[in-house]
Amino acid sequence: MRACREVLNGAVPLPSLLDPDRLFPSDPASREIARELYASVAALPILSPHGHVDAAVLLDNEPFADAAELLVRHDHYVTRLLHAAGIELSALGLPDADAPGAVAPAREIWRTFSRNWRLFAGTASGYWLNDQLVRILGVDEHPSAENSDAVFDRIAARLAAPEFRPRALFDSFGIEVLATTDDPLDDLSAHAALAADSTFRGRVLPTFRPDAYLDPADAGWAERIEALTLGRTSYVAYLDSLAARRQYFIQHGAVAADHGVVQPLTIDLSPSDAQALFDCGMAGTLDGAEARAFSAHMLLEMARMSVEDGLVMTVHAGVHRNHSSETHRRFGPDTGHDLPVATNWVESLHPLLERFGNRADFHLVLFGVDETAYSREIAPMAGFYPSVYVGAPWWFLDAPDAVLRFRAAVTETAGFYRGSGFVDDTRAFLSIPTRHDMSRRLEAAFLARLVREGRVDVASAASILHDLVDTLPRRVFNL
Amino acid sequence: MRACREVLNGAVPLPSLLDPDRLFPSDPASREIARELYASVAALPILSPHGHVDAAVLLDNEPFADAAELLVRHDHYVTRLLHAAGIELSALGLPDADAPGAVAPAREIWRTFSRNWRLFAGTASGYWLNDQLVRILGVDEHPSAENSDAVFDRIAARLAAPEFRPRALFDSFGIEVLATTDDPLDDLSAHAALAADSTFRGRVLPTFRPDAYLDPADAGWAERIEALTLGRTSYVAYLDSLAARRQYFIQHGAVAADHGVVQPLTIDLSPSDAQALFDCGMAGTLDGAEARAFSAHMLLEMARMSVEDGLVMTVHAGVHRNHSSETHRRFGPDTGHDLPVATNWVESLHPLLERFGNRADFHLVLFGVDETAYSREIAPMAGFYPSVYVGAPWWFLDAPDAVLRFRAAVTETAGFYRGSGFVDDTRAFLSIPTRHDMSRRLEAAFLARLVREGRVDVASAASILHDLVDTLPRRVFNL
Amino acid sequence: MRACREVLNGAVPLPSLLDPDRLFPSDPASREIARELYASVAALPILSPHGHVDAAVLLDNEPFADAAELLVRHDHYVTRLLHAAGIELSALGLPDADAPGAVAPAREIWRTFSRNWRLFAGTASGYWLNDQLVRILGVDEHPSAENSDAVFDRIAARLAAPEFRPRALFDSFGIEVLATTDDPLDDLSAHAALAADSTFRGRVLPTFRPDAYLDPADAGWAERIEALTLGRTSYVAYLDSLAARRQYFIQHGAVAADHGVVQPLTIDLSPSDAQALFDCGMAGTLDGAEARAFSAHMLLEMARMSVEDGLVMTVHAGVHRNHSSETHRRFGPDTGHDLPVATNWVESLHPLLERFGNRADFHLVLFGVDETAYSREIAPMAGFYPSVYVGAPWWFLDAPDAVLRFRAAVTETAGFYRGSGFVDDTRAFLSIPTRHDMSRRLEAAFLARLVREGRVDVASAASILHDLVDTLPRRVFNL
Repeated sequence: MRACREVLNGAVPLPSLLDPDRLFPSDPASREIARELYASVAALPILSPHGHVDAAVLLDNEPFADAAELLVRHDHYVTRLLHAAGIELSALGLPDADAPGAVAPAREIWRTFSRNWRLFAGTASGYWLNDQLVRILGVDEHPSAENSDAVFDRIAARLAAPEFRPRALFDSFGIEVLATTDDPLDDLSAHAALAADSTFRGRVLPTFRPDAYLDPADAGWAERIEALTLGRTSYVAYLDSLAARRQYFIQHGAVAADHGVVQPLTIDLSPSDAQALFDCGMAGTLDGAEARAFSAHMLLEMARMSVEDGLVMTVHAGVHRNHSSETHRRFGPDTGHDLPVATNWVESLHPLLERFGNRADFHLVLFGVDETAYSREIAPMAGFYPSVYVGAPWWFLDAPDAVLRFRAAVTETAGFYRGSGFVDDTRAFLSIPTRHDMSRRLEAAFLARLVREGRVDVASAASILHDLVDTLPRRVFNL
Repeated sequence: MRACREVLNGAVPLPSLLDPDRLFPSDPASREIARELYASVAALPILSPHGHVDAAVLLDNEPFADAAELLVRHDHYVTRLLHAAGIELSALGLPDADAPGAVAPAREIWRTFSRNWRLFAGTASGYWLNDQLVRILGVDEHPSAENSDAVFDRIAARLAAPEFRPRALFDSFGIEVLATTDDPLDDLSAHAALAADSTFRGRVLPTFRPDAYLDPADAGWAERIEALTLGRTSYVAYLDSLAARRQYFIQHGAVAADHGVVQPLTIDLSPSDAQALFDCGMAGTLDGAEARAFSAHMLLEMARMSVEDGLVMTVHAGVHRNHSSETHRRFGPDTGHDLPVATNWVESLHPLLERFGNRADFHLVLFGVDETAYSREIAPMAGFYPSVYVGAPWWFLDAPDAVLRFRAAVTETAGFYRGSGFVDDTRAFLSIPTRHDMSRRLEAAFLARLVREGRVDVASAASILHDLVDTLPRRVFNL
Repeated sequence: MRACREVLNGAVPLPSLLDPDRLFPSDPASREIARELYASVAALPILSPHGHVDAAVLLDNEPFADAAELLVRHDHYVTRLLHAAGIELSALGLPDADAPGAVAPAREIWRTFSRNWRLFAGTASGYWLNDQLVRILGVDEHPSAENSDAVFDRIAARLAAPEFRPRALFDSFGIEVLATTDDPLDDLSAHAALAADSTFRGRVLPTFRPDAYLDPADAGWAERIEALTLGRTSYVAYLDSLAARRQYFIQHGAVAADHGVVQPLTIDLSPSDAQALFDCGMAGTLDGAEARAFSAHMLLEMARMSVEDGLVMTVHAGVHRNHSSETHRRFGPDTGHDLPVATNWVESLHPLLERFGNRADFHLVLFGVDETAYSREIAPMAGFYPSVYVGAPWWFLDAPDAVLRFRAAVTETAGFYRGSGFVDDTRAFLSIPTRHDMSRRLEAAFLARLVREGRVDVASAASILHDLVDTLPRRVFNL
């Protein structure tokens, strides 16, 4: 780990598996510009205002178990592609409800992964994994059936070292801010303990994620509302309790509330209509359309609360979750079976924007997995409404070519200054520096092309790149 | 102005803010081909068969007021992006219904614009504005807080010169044909006066735009029909009056009728059904579905009239107008709050194409802001129906990368000869030569890549480029 | 023909109309990599697991009639673009129901085609035709009004030679496997005769295409079911008869069943509901929604049969067939008037995938003409479900730029190993080697870029390219 920071910053020669010019444009003149632009931001601190790392990982600061635990088992990008190759999720270490207690051995999981390394060529995961293996874990060969055990042991030795504990990595990665994603009823004790710990300098911020409390069609909704409202199950108490939990999150450092929906539908119901639907929801008598109306109303209410309490509102839309009910039942959510669907923003958000769209103090960041909406809806909305920001390309679209398509699709309409800055949105702690580095390289590559095409001068490009990496996320997320 | 034409044609060295190779491919071999192709068409006359410049500007030939009036206030591309940055539209000089009489001073508007110049980097507007400032207005530095007043004064001095009057610019820009967009009841006196003026050599053509007369759901529709039909409010008189106004436009030089719709729905109603809906529309008793059916029927009727009288039918679809009712109420239409929506062409136009699609004497040009339809619907339709032409990329998509995406998306299916040629569609008079120049550069860039990839030989590329710039718009718009 | 194979494999200098580096990246460094990658697969045998060449062409082995018959008349890519230019389909040799008996002379058709050669510049057809004319037919100039008769005669001379008979071409093209597309009641006698013919070494496989037997809304459905079931018109006999015909196809070498639908809707009806709908369908009393439900159920039943009998299930979705009823009535199907529509896969296939999605022994290959689904739906589905494979870009999207967009859109999510391999899907026999060569060049071009961007090393790229061209189609189609 001694050299980790230096390697990350380019001070140490990189192994041949890692091209120092990776992701830069092919044309030599553009490549030279990209190289210089990238160098100007490569070492800036990492701001990660949205993600899924557990705060307890940093609080406990336990060593990572092994290569399979670190890189395979919890990464649904990895498990889904191995599952597609015909490998059972149970063979990747995921607990199987049909075979309780049985867990694949870590070394065997790593063998399976290594044997199938070719499947990741050209994917975002392949890029990230290679970067982590080489830059952070010091592995200087591609995983393979032949080297599987040796690499597993080599990684194990690394993980045992104190500089590979989570907090040491947090420092060496140069992370300044890391946001987690949390249930509204979470007591945030891990966040509080970290904030009180004078030996840890990083900022670890909770994020309010109330999805499960907003949609009466979700199993267990009424029970959760009972818990949220401490039994006072009126619509007014429901709204008050949500507002109170938001305040609790704010007191613990939260800067954002996050919302995951299939379609970003919003409806502006009257209080009495909302109350009536709420009561039916608690009684379990809503039909599908009524439940959709109520949750659409609640998304608008969340915007209202954001206007009032200042939490940035992030919306992640367009994913059909748990498409395979068999693997969902056996292996649970977030294991690879989520699929994008076409997403409509302009019509769906109309009621919300009619209410709050023109407020510059309201920050609404939109993340989608239907890239057709980038040029057609998201950039045009962010190019008019002062509240709307273009979220970084998300999930299936957080990959080199997709990022450049995103950048080209939004910039010509919204410019560079209506974006959220990069958001890694990751569950894989080790991938954080890799993903931010990838983003910086791609932004440099995009700007270098524009310089080469006479559309931006090089001084402006350098200034824009600094703003994309540093100024914008601070401003949009009030960091 | 002395050198304006020479500058436009490349005879005078360009300031360093304007790369002579701008928008050409990065690869040197392709760039060299693009440079030569572009040079072969750079000085061809400008044909502008669709746009929104007011004929009175040329008739009156008054000097442009100032930089804010010329470049900021009336350009909804500019006002929307400044509004998104939190600047009130009233601060950009737009009359505010909530504060009648108050108008921001031009110099102050220009300061606001200059201070925010970075917002336009990478956008189509940024490219156009830079080109106009440098090439036409002789400004050799980027707008900034520091130089705002000096640049404002410098532009003021230019605008006072006789060679910056609208007619002189019309000539120096090399415009041969300029179409305006007009209400069916417009008396076209400005067009008539220009045509009768022997000191003005350009062709300024009206365009018949009957949207407000075709949709009974539009406020004031019945009153407009009263005016259109001179009180004879039968369905037959309505159709006759529309046909008569089209004749009036044709007599004044019109070559096209233009139609703006959210979805390009068409329905082939029987005359008796249409008559019944018309009568209900006049009585104000149509519901939403009936109003949509009637306006869809009328779009098909407009096609029928185009078949009969020869006006080219242009359809601009896919825009949710006035998405923000607050700014619409305060600042009116066309100030930046229009947003694209997904657009269906193949199903929507089916009834129309069943009637008239196979007629080669009918010209139907399709413009969309949902770029997914380019490869999926518009190019395939234009690749079969002799009546259908692919409209140039429009509005949010009239930008360098979007134009190249458009070109790649449509050409492989429809070739180069099923397009409308470039259409600037602009309200900003000064941007006309800039936009046409951008188009010529991008067509050259696209063709250069195909030459480099061995897909088109260079002689064919030169011939195609000439046809795109000159032959096609003349043929498609019967100029 | 002596040199045909050598030319195809690059052993003979190519005429100047055919750039040896065609379709490779513009950047010289990337181009050099692409050139070497391509060379490693250029001569591999052709595997064509889906297409529309008639087996009788190879059985009869008659000479091709003339240039018009070979390259114009039967190619709906060509006829549609000439029709768009205002040329009547009858003038291209298509029999016209309105003028029975009249057929345009071949030489005249060729003149029309040659005169309009410029229309094909930049299109997929233009690329394929040029490649065939130069590489296979030895024509060393672009078709034109001037050379039309001379080229027609030159091609006629070639076609008269024994090495231009279909079987000789099959050999010289290096085709190993060629699949046809056949009606379930076809007796497959041509396939049987070819298999029994010891003088013909190629494999010509039938494909089961039951569309017309699955949709009760299709005219003549009940009569076809009578024929299929030999009069035993019960739902059970219907399913049994379909399964029996599939077995017959399998006995004659079939590896796949192919399904063409507008939307890939699937429904999992109970047997009794299905039976009831079947009975109404036979009685002609189904309404539109019921007919759709039944055909959606039958698509799921086809999946069930594929799971049982091992036929690969290919689905081609998203085409509005015979959009112009006038030209359909006069000239029949497959003459150019089919148009793509937006396609939804994730929701539509959900019932089918719930039943069979996680079975690795089931192969479901998805082909679409709505390219927005590549990154949003098809690649994510293939990146999780072991049964789902990404079909090669199809029809309007089987063109150089579209293929590279496809490759970029799917690879970052699904990698290189979830694809079907290239499928030519052609009716034009002579275009088979051209299309496969184009695909190999484009795969090499894409991989070369990834090598140049440091994302794949060159040894891996070579291995991937071999797998794309050879390993994958063999594995996915069980060849």
